[in-house]
Amino acid sequence: MADKLTPRGEDYSKWYTEIVQRAELADYSPVRGSMVIRPYGYTLWEAVQSGLDRRFKATGHQNAYFPLLIPMSFLQKEKEHVEGFSPELAVVTHAGGELLEEPLVVRPTSETIIGYMYAQWIKSYRDLPVLINCWNNVVRWELRTRLFLRTSEFLWQEGHTAHATAEEAEAETRQMLDVYTDFAVNDAAIPVIPGRKSESEKFAGAVRSYTIEAMMGDKKALQSGTSHFLGQNFAKAFDIKYLSKNNVQEFAWTTSWGLSTRMIGGIIMVHGDDQGLKLPPKLAPIQAVIVPIFKSDAEQSKVMPVVETIRKQLADAVRVKVDDRDDTPGFKFNDWEMRGVPLRIEVGPKDVDKGTVVLARRDVPGREGKSFVPQAGLLEAVQSLLATIQSDMLQRATEFRDANTHEPKSYDEFKSIIEDGFARAWWCGERQCEADIKEETKATTRCIPLDQPGGSGVCVHCGQPATEVAIFGKAY
Amino acid sequence: MADKLTPRGEDYSKWYTEIVQRAELADYSPVRGSMVIRPYGYTLWEAVQSGLDRRFKATGHQNAYFPLLIPMSFLQKEKEHVEGFSPELAVVTHAGGELLEEPLVVRPTSETIIGYMYAQWIKSYRDLPVLINCWNNVVRWELRTRLFLRTSEFLWQEGHTAHATAEEAEAETRQMLDVYTDFAVNDAAIPVIPGRKSESEKFAGAVRSYTIEAMMGDKKALQSGTSHFLGQNFAKAFDIKYLSKNNVQEFAWTTSWGLSTRMIGGIIMVHGDDQGLKLPPKLAPIQAVIVPIFKSDAEQSKVMPVVETIRKQLADAVRVKVDDRDDTPGFKFNDWEMRGVPLRIEVGPKDVDKGTVVLARRDVPGREGKSFVPQAGLLEAVQSLLATIQSDMLQRATEFRDANTHEPKSYDEFKSIIEDGFARAWWCGERQCEADIKEETKATTRCIPLDQPGGSGVCVHCGQPATEVAIFGKAY
Repeated sequence: MADKLTPRGEDYSKWYTEIVQRAELADYSPVRGSMVIRPYGYTLWEAVQSGLDRRFKATGHQNAYFPLLIPMSFLQKEKEHVEGFSPELAVVTHAGGELLEEPLVVRPTSETIIGYMYAQWIKSYRDLPVLINCWNNVVRWELRTRLFLRTSEFLWQEGHTAHATAEEAEAETRQMLDVYTDFAVNDAAIPVIPGRKSESEKFAGAVRSYTIEAMMGDKKALQSGTSHFLGQNFAKAFDIKYLSKNNVQEFAWTTSWGLSTRMIGGIIMVHGDDQGLKLPPKLAPIQAVIVPIFKSDAEQSKVMPVVETIRKQLADAVRVKVDDRDDTPGFKFNDWEMRGVPLRIEVGPKDVDKGTVVLARRDVPGREGKSFVPQAGLLEAVQSLLATIQSDMLQRATEFRDANTHEPKSYDEFKSIIEDGFARAWWCGERQCEADIKEETKATTRCIPLDQPGGSGVCVHCGQPATEVAIFGKAY
Repeated sequence: MADKLTPRGEDYSKWYTEIVQRAELADYSPVRGSMVIRPYGYTLWEAVQSGLDRRFKATGHQNAYFPLLIPMSFLQKEKEHVEGFSPELAVVTHAGGELLEEPLVVRPTSETIIGYMYAQWIKSYRDLPVLINCWNNVVRWELRTRLFLRTSEFLWQEGHTAHATAEEAEAETRQMLDVYTDFAVNDAAIPVIPGRKSESEKFAGAVRSYTIEAMMGDKKALQSGTSHFLGQNFAKAFDIKYLSKNNVQEFAWTTSWGLSTRMIGGIIMVHGDDQGLKLPPKLAPIQAVIVPIFKSDAEQSKVMPVVETIRKQLADAVRVKVDDRDDTPGFKFNDWEMRGVPLRIEVGPKDVDKGTVVLARRDVPGREGKSFVPQAGLLEAVQSLLATIQSDMLQRATEFRDANTHEPKSYDEFKSIIEDGFARAWWCGERQCEADIKEETKATTRCIPLDQPGGSGVCVHCGQPATEVAIFGKAY
């Protein structure tokens, strides 16, 4: 790692791409717009999966798997859905050496095939609710792609549930938004804003879409997870009916919700700095790296047994790694900083003599982030420091977002705020008004936050009466 | 579950398909040859994943992800590889509304795209070995498909490693075969035979393929996992070179190894009986089901608190479920037998009085499988019984396989053995001899077992000298 990263202030986009590649999170693949997720990046994704999967199961969901290839005609059954997705489809026309009678679409999302199966499985109210999640890959042929943020193929989970009533389906939609919020805030240390999408920003085929929106280090927004109340749209398109307790055939009410590898882009951009990645301890593939420090064989023989003792002491409860590579401590420090490991443990000959180690925090640079800690009871000290790092990272990201979110008093003020942060403003909710704002400023409504001030105001753009406040920002 | 399953003796194939659907493991999808894995089947797959993933990580592997869509030209770079796979390819010709310049293949396996990436990443001997595994989906357009056993799309893991020497790569290939064997025997309770594939049965592009072969309940063989030594074939095709310690450019040596959802078909067919599934406790999504027994509201009020106490007692260490559905105990017994839950715990009013419960083993029918056990210390009793069930299932499957494996003294004897089991026989190893046997008997060499008697003999078919014994059987 001789070369320094391009500083964020110089070229944020270049900084991002360099981090992804140098920290070996992901790499470009030979297929346009698709990426290879390297072991370090995939281990981070496994931590995201595990944090979410645990929460899904705790709320009564089970995982299942549905086919990758979907008959083209299925997508056409829900009008808005096919309009939303058809420009992005990848299509299998030949298989087994023959032209297929009907082309198959590589799933861009699975509402249609799952709707078809639910229609087979659901017969009576006793079969409801159906609470299923899938971990899979989807393909959306994007023109402009960026590693993790927008790729032709990405990994995600998509939850699909069916319910007897609208109320129950809406409650599920909101519950899963809460699950995403809880994960983002508590595991990823990302202070997201949960809210409703505007009519023009909602999912193709949904009645209502909810989202969690986060502010990145360049003050742009990242939609980080979405949860959709689909009403009876897909139930009617695929004939998902059940016999109610009153012996009447009713259409079911469905939901879908998804979070993708895009979240990794969010983690990079919310926490990273000019030295590299900065990973929240709960998700970090390596939480603590031990760097032995010695200048001679004698010192090495003195240090290494202590390093091994410390590793063993931590290994059951902390994801710890010893860096015994044949490189200088300085190289190693930079390397692990680049890779965002939350805590560095230095052990040199003097530490051995004193029975201490040096703990260096990734999130607090320089002397301020260093402490000298006794080897006895090190596990507790490390665990406690990791918890502090986790909560400090959340606090820092929250302060940054709040310091860069403003409430414009005029459209002129709105336009200047939006150049460098989020605007929180009364908005009329009209499609045309949103389109005008977008054309004039490149900002979109990120969401109408669940947390509303109450009362009413006037729309920041058109001056019409407004009953809700929206968050506006430029977005990835 | 009013209808009984078709007995195995009447129509094994029908029995199999009925179990898969009635136990809600999987279902047919509207796309020819592809399947939907339902929550119960997927939870079983998650147990398989977890058992393998733990072993992969313990042997130094990390997970990663490579693209689904592979340029057609990549497959053509390894001659045998493309010949093996081209009849089965699904091809994306259009994406984003346009005809692609080069068609993309939906991965049937990922040696080619991974080989391409390894060539970018591997520069020096210090970068080796590369030890990567992927959990993903692949598509092979099969003409005759069966749920889990042969589907156009399936889930699997594919490991891909690169090494500095042939010896190291061969050792990796064998190590992963050992991992599969250990998993199959100890987790799935399937007594597999590890061995080498014949020249005509090996993987397209491999130097040597190894396999674990299992005997199903109808005495046919199932190839249950394979591990391939690829030599320098893919390294040469994709230019995977490294600078050696002696400062010379050398081609790397690579391996690949995979195990798929097919394993679930193996679990069904090795253990299942005319009552349904029989799951090994280590992999069972539900290890013990508690069925409360009562005939009146008063009895219900007496029984249910004890049921809840018992559930709590077990829940931390056993995957336990209470069946509180509004159905008869008889219905529930049949239902959980169909679904293969290893242990049933019955709690009735008399059990409450006596402070006992009834434990009924799925693997031992009738009275013999029942025991009366005190509620105090139930966790230990259940854990111990689950361990017994696990080892008894392995033992029963081993005895069945051994009783149906014979050593023919002539080709006539061979032909009759092969009609109803495995033949273990001296074999010359010649491609033509194997082809003749296949044409005459429909049996193939399943493997040349690692465990060899030593010495030499004469080929059971052609009478030529033979130095190795092979296992022959009809196969799925």
